[in-house]
Amino acid sequence: MSPHDYNALLDIPNFPPERYAPLADRIARLLGTRSDIVFVQAEALLALEAIATSVARPGLVAANIVTSPYGAYFGAWLRRGGVEVLDIVAEPGQPITAPAVEAAISVLPKLDILVMVHGEAANGALNPLEAVARQARAHGALLIIDAVASVGAHAIDIDGLGIDFLAIGPQKALGGPVGLSAVAISPRGWSHIAATPSPSPSLLSLADIKANWLDKGRGALPGTPPPLEFWALEAAIGRVEAEGIDARIARHQLAARATRTGLRAMGVEPWIVDDDAASALVTSVPVPPGLDAGTLIVEGAGLGVALGRGFGDIEDRLLRIDHTGRRAAFASVSASLAGLGAVLKAHGVAVDIGAAIRVVAAVYKRT
Amino acid sequence: MSPHDYNALLDIPNFPPERYAPLADRIARLLGTRSDIVFVQAEALLALEAIATSVARPGLVAANIVTSPYGAYFGAWLRRGGVEVLDIVAEPGQPITAPAVEAAISVLPKLDILVMVHGEAANGALNPLEAVARQARAHGALLIIDAVASVGAHAIDIDGLGIDFLAIGPQKALGGPVGLSAVAISPRGWSHIAATPSPSPSLLSLADIKANWLDKGRGALPGTPPPLEFWALEAAIGRVEAEGIDARIARHQLAARATRTGLRAMGVEPWIVDDDAASALVTSVPVPPGLDAGTLIVEGAGLGVALGRGFGDIEDRLLRIDHTGRRAAFASVSASLAGLGAVLKAHGVAVDIGAAIRVVAAVYKRT
Amino acid sequence: MSPHDYNALLDIPNFPPERYAPLADRIARLLGTRSDIVFVQAEALLALEAIATSVARPGLVAANIVTSPYGAYFGAWLRRGGVEVLDIVAEPGQPITAPAVEAAISVLPKLDILVMVHGEAANGALNPLEAVARQARAHGALLIIDAVASVGAHAIDIDGLGIDFLAIGPQKALGGPVGLSAVAISPRGWSHIAATPSPSPSLLSLADIKANWLDKGRGALPGTPPPLEFWALEAAIGRVEAEGIDARIARHQLAARATRTGLRAMGVEPWIVDDDAASALVTSVPVPPGLDAGTLIVEGAGLGVALGRGFGDIEDRLLRIDHTGRRAAFASVSASLAGLGAVLKAHGVAVDIGAAIRVVAAVYKRT
Amino acid sequence: MSPHDYNALLDIPNFPPERYAPLADRIARLLGTRSDIVFVQAEALLALEAIATSVARPGLVAANIVTSPYGAYFGAWLRRGGVEVLDIVAEPGQPITAPAVEAAISVLPKLDILVMVHGEAANGALNPLEAVARQARAHGALLIIDAVASVGAHAIDIDGLGIDFLAIGPQKALGGPVGLSAVAISPRGWSHIAATPSPSPSLLSLADIKANWLDKGRGALPGTPPPLEFWALEAAIGRVEAEGIDARIARHQLAARATRTGLRAMGVEPWIVDDDAASALVTSVPVPPGLDAGTLIVEGAGLGVALGRGFGDIEDRLLRIDHTGRRAAFASVSASLAGLGAVLKAHGVAVDIGAAIRVVAAVYKRT
Repeated sequence: MSPHDYNALLDIPNFPPERYAPLADRIARLLGTRSDIVFVQAEALLALEAIATSVARPGLVAANIVTSPYGAYFGAWLRRGGVEVLDIVAEPGQPITAPAVEAAISVLPKLDILVMVHGEAANGALNPLEAVARQARAHGALLIIDAVASVGAHAIDIDGLGIDFLAIGPQKALGGPVGLSAVAISPRGWSHIAATPSPSPSLLSLADIKANWLDKGRGALPGTPPPLEFWALEAAIGRVEAEGIDARIARHQLAARATRTGLRAMGVEPWIVDDDAASALVTSVPVPPGLDAGTLIVEGAGLGVALGRGFGDIEDRLLRIDHTGRRAAFASVSASLAGLGAVLKAHGVAVDIGAAIRVVAAVYKRT
Repeated sequence: MSPHDYNALLDIPNFPPERYAPLADRIARLLGTRSDIVFVQAEALLALEAIATSVARPGLVAANIVTSPYGAYFGAWLRRGGVEVLDIVAEPGQPITAPAVEAAISVLPKLDILVMVHGEAANGALNPLEAVARQARAHGALLIIDAVASVGAHAIDIDGLGIDFLAIGPQKALGGPVGLSAVAISPRGWSHIAATPSPSPSLLSLADIKANWLDKGRGALPGTPPPLEFWALEAAIGRVEAEGIDARIARHQLAARATRTGLRAMGVEPWIVDDDAASALVTSVPVPPGLDAGTLIVEGAGLGVALGRGFGDIEDRLLRIDHTGRRAAFASVSASLAGLGAVLKAHGVAVDIGAAIRVVAAVYKRT
Repeated sequence: MSPHDYNALLDIPNFPPERYAPLADRIARLLGTRSDIVFVQAEALLALEAIATSVARPGLVAANIVTSPYGAYFGAWLRRGGVEVLDIVAEPGQPITAPAVEAAISVLPKLDILVMVHGEAANGALNPLEAVARQARAHGALLIIDAVASVGAHAIDIDGLGIDFLAIGPQKALGGPVGLSAVAISPRGWSHIAATPSPSPSLLSLADIKANWLDKGRGALPGTPPPLEFWALEAAIGRVEAEGIDARIARHQLAARATRTGLRAMGVEPWIVDDDAASALVTSVPVPPGLDAGTLIVEGAGLGVALGRGFGDIEDRLLRIDHTGRRAAFASVSASLAGLGAVLKAHGVAVDIGAAIRVVAAVYKRT
Repeated sequence: MSPHDYNALLDIPNFPPERYAPLADRIARLLGTRSDIVFVQAEALLALEAIATSVARPGLVAANIVTSPYGAYFGAWLRRGGVEVLDIVAEPGQPITAPAVEAAISVLPKLDILVMVHGEAANGALNPLEAVARQARAHGALLIIDAVASVGAHAIDIDGLGIDFLAIGPQKALGGPVGLSAVAISPRGWSHIAATPSPSPSLLSLADIKANWLDKGRGALPGTPPPLEFWALEAAIGRVEAEGIDARIARHQLAARATRTGLRAMGVEPWIVDDDAASALVTSVPVPPGLDAGTLIVEGAGLGVALGRGFGDIEDRLLRIDHTGRRAAFASVSASLAGLGAVLKAHGVAVDIGAAIRVVAAVYKRT
């Protein structure tokens, strides 16, 4: 007898086509943008591949900022489409700096596309969106931002910054499902797509999505859109609206601030040292010398505290504390620091758990 | 647009009658009893009223231990049925003591029924089950135990202790639904019912439940049993089986020990001083002099930490920390103590949050 | 590996107390009544017992119309409370007639309470609500109506007819859950309760519900209200509002008319001959002479067509066709008649299935 | 207040990685194959694109059977990958014939890949799987079968027929979710992939799926697999196992036979004339001359009967009756024929609804 079956999922009806467009409009309203919102009927990694595939053509030059494996993927997709790509690679697990971007771009003959991940769930880095957007505008380049791990926790002024493609993942700060994603596309983004050969027919061709949905009056989506994901997304958007997007962003910022202040009070410096370059979704801490990330994670799990592994080349070097969605709250932040502290202390690391909790409480009381 | 509708609940099919008996058997197996398990198709408070109504008749003498309003209700129901009832009342919010029970009973001319709540969710008290059971056996009295707030978190040897009626609530340590309850009834319990006029016809008559379900081969239950509750109970029982009842009990005991040790390290003595008389579901703490329970609860909620109000005559005098079900875990215990500490500290109470968390961590590490 | 577990039910949060009163108000609005709506936290049969227990006292005289076992139960509960009860019993499985009620009442010395089931799910009878309400008014008697199997499918003018207690079951035409019910209570109903000793403390005492919920500003309900049931009820009420109560009633009336006309075209006269005395939820047909109800039901189930058994003394004499909720639709009515016809034909009964379906289609096309 | 939110979906936990491999094994067992089952974390149309993209390389010659737009897509994807593709196109909306395939292939210089959709949901055609598989074997060609709309309703001997890639969609006869699909891949299929440049990195590269999941011991899937879809697939597979795959196939075959026999008795010849070339999931009927498909569909919906539109070039020429999953039952088949008949009759088409239902009943009674 399995304690894990979810039969209720099989009893849920189809998502009515007339709810797609209002849902897209609600997302646009939350993001405060006039860009079109289109759905990609698969997880956000496929939305990113769809963007890359839909904008790539030979003759273009792109600068691609790499601060985690996702950036590396994006470069590979652009190259597969014939684009000449310069990867701008940060220190392992660290955010890129604005000067590094500017310097790298300055040697390029031209700049057609500039790509960056905004927040990195893999290491807790936050890249300098405004400065990079300025670079794109200065060079008249198409600006592609992966906001999967920042939307809902950081303010993003899509129209003001001139973001042409913003990849949106519902499953992090928006508290929604995984198997569905969205892209905000500017008029300039559509113009570029119109001038680019489409990998048609494909559910991952943005040109096809435009032709088969947007241009047909936004009724039925192409293919067979997954109802569970759309119902879940609609419910999640409803929750964000009920809380207010600004309140949700503030809640995540508060959780990040409390976590970082608490860590320092405990005696642990966060992996990302600069507060302004730190994600509001996750905070990473370095694995102390001589200790093993996997062991610490298992011990945390034994206490019911989820310490996440890094991802990519720094996977053994840091631990991730998740304060996303429901976890962006005093109770979760306290428990995470308590658990991390307990695990480190057991290995002889000098930590002051009490100081951490006191500081977390103080940060929350002040609000 | 409401963020709170649960349409999925309307799509769930009926619970098939052939699943009732296996579900009852699984509960009996978890409890290690040969008593019959029967369902009461409503919350546990109605199961308790059903027991009282089904056993009461003029001419009987009962001793009724009162350690919360629930005990007072039970006495009222017995009296309504003509029973002569002696209430044995503990100090407000405190458990009864074995000597107090013995002394009270000793003055009675005879003892037909002995009634007690095992664990009190209202104040965190745990009454002395074994000693009271001995008293019942010594007097040949029917033993009725309200285990709604103890089953799944404390071991209860129904057959060994000679418990004739055990009221079971699925919604606490068993992690199940609210709108359904069960009663374990011994052969002696059935004999008593057979000799008592039944309030038939009624869904709350145990005699009717016997006649209409047990004696008819345990197929369809009488009335219209609520499918949502039965599916939920079945799923909950599946989870308990997967964890193991002993492991679940141990997990609750550990959470209680960690909470109590942590409180003392913080500088707060639990409301129930004796560890052996404390519930494994909730731990109460006194409201410090000069402070207001309601204010503290609101402030805790502001931090996302649930501090519960007392219930009954001590409702303004204590706060309850819930470590039941999923909350019986390091993360939840830590967060609760951190939150309680932060709230108290803000009112100038001298608490050492760090010491509390360190001790909680140590208790968990030791296991 | 069980294909039937519903773990999702265990993940659903509590129903917030501040949603109870709005939900009650939405029900009152749907029913167009100024009566108070109170919840009974158990199935409707317990709501009926609660009404009986709450209004009964020695010295009262009641006329109790019995057209199914439910009526018999109500009489028993009134008698248990000391009321002198005259049962007015209809022919087995048939509705009562207005003259029969008038005649029976005329011999009583006085009439304090008049009780009737409106629609009978057990046999498809619809009792003459308006005429009976006139009798109650003429005698100044309290009027208690069991509308569990009629609300949502038949118009009921609670205030205009002077109904003092209307028992509401969410699980039939309202499409809601089973484990929760409601009662609409008039000011006169409350006055009667105020003058009657209450079976306090009890979740089934309407006086307690008034004292502990209505009079306390309609916040938290007493006891532990089952969240699954309340979420489900709220969702069901939302669906009724979206369809419109009048549209839902009309849909049920249409399904009943199509079923009855179709049956006659098939060559089968409905069990209830008079269309105005027939339920809009279920239509019964007589079991043809020489055939066995159980066999026909099994054969219907083999075709995926649910033919229901009667209930009470006519359980072997009729079959029930359910056209409630989602089943109040052409597709379901057609399938039911097709299935019934196929089963009867296989036993040599002369039926014209084609004529039935043609007539059903015609009834639906006309609308 | 929306009557359509599905908040419960947001409360469902992650799908544990250790359940992926057992789930794949259960699917393999149901299909009776030794091929590897791999998951594609998106709808089946993307699984098909993944297969095409993963096997295509310049220098290969493919014969691609086109009996609906899906076949045309597959040809486009192969051509995009440099394959020389011969489309073997059937009459609009009709299945291909074995001789047509043989004749077309005979003119090719070589045959590396043979592709076919097994059952067509778009028009109800069933292509000749065994004969086509023989052709593939005779030419030593890789055999790719789209079984999305046939698996679970038609027996498919993957290993015996030598199918190298079988695309599996859970959402039709298997009764599962939409946003997830699977592919059964033979050792020969893997060898071909190993010899083909992969579109890495991509969630749609089968080589990547092999490297990142199969070759790593089948633990965590790459990317972020959607939990709702996996829980739903697991529950659906559980239901198929409980029914038995053979029983489920037989149930669909019976529904198709009843529908087709019933249609003929009504006076309507199915769109696909040959019973052996007809799908067990849907049965199409021609739109009678002078009538409009859209109008008929709207009128059917008015009766609560879902008549589907065709898809592709025959979309205005046929109506589809769905007898998939729960609809593979007498009640649904009867209701569909009754509804279709009523709609046609209202337009003056001579139909004998009664004869249809009698015949459907007879087909079901015989089993």
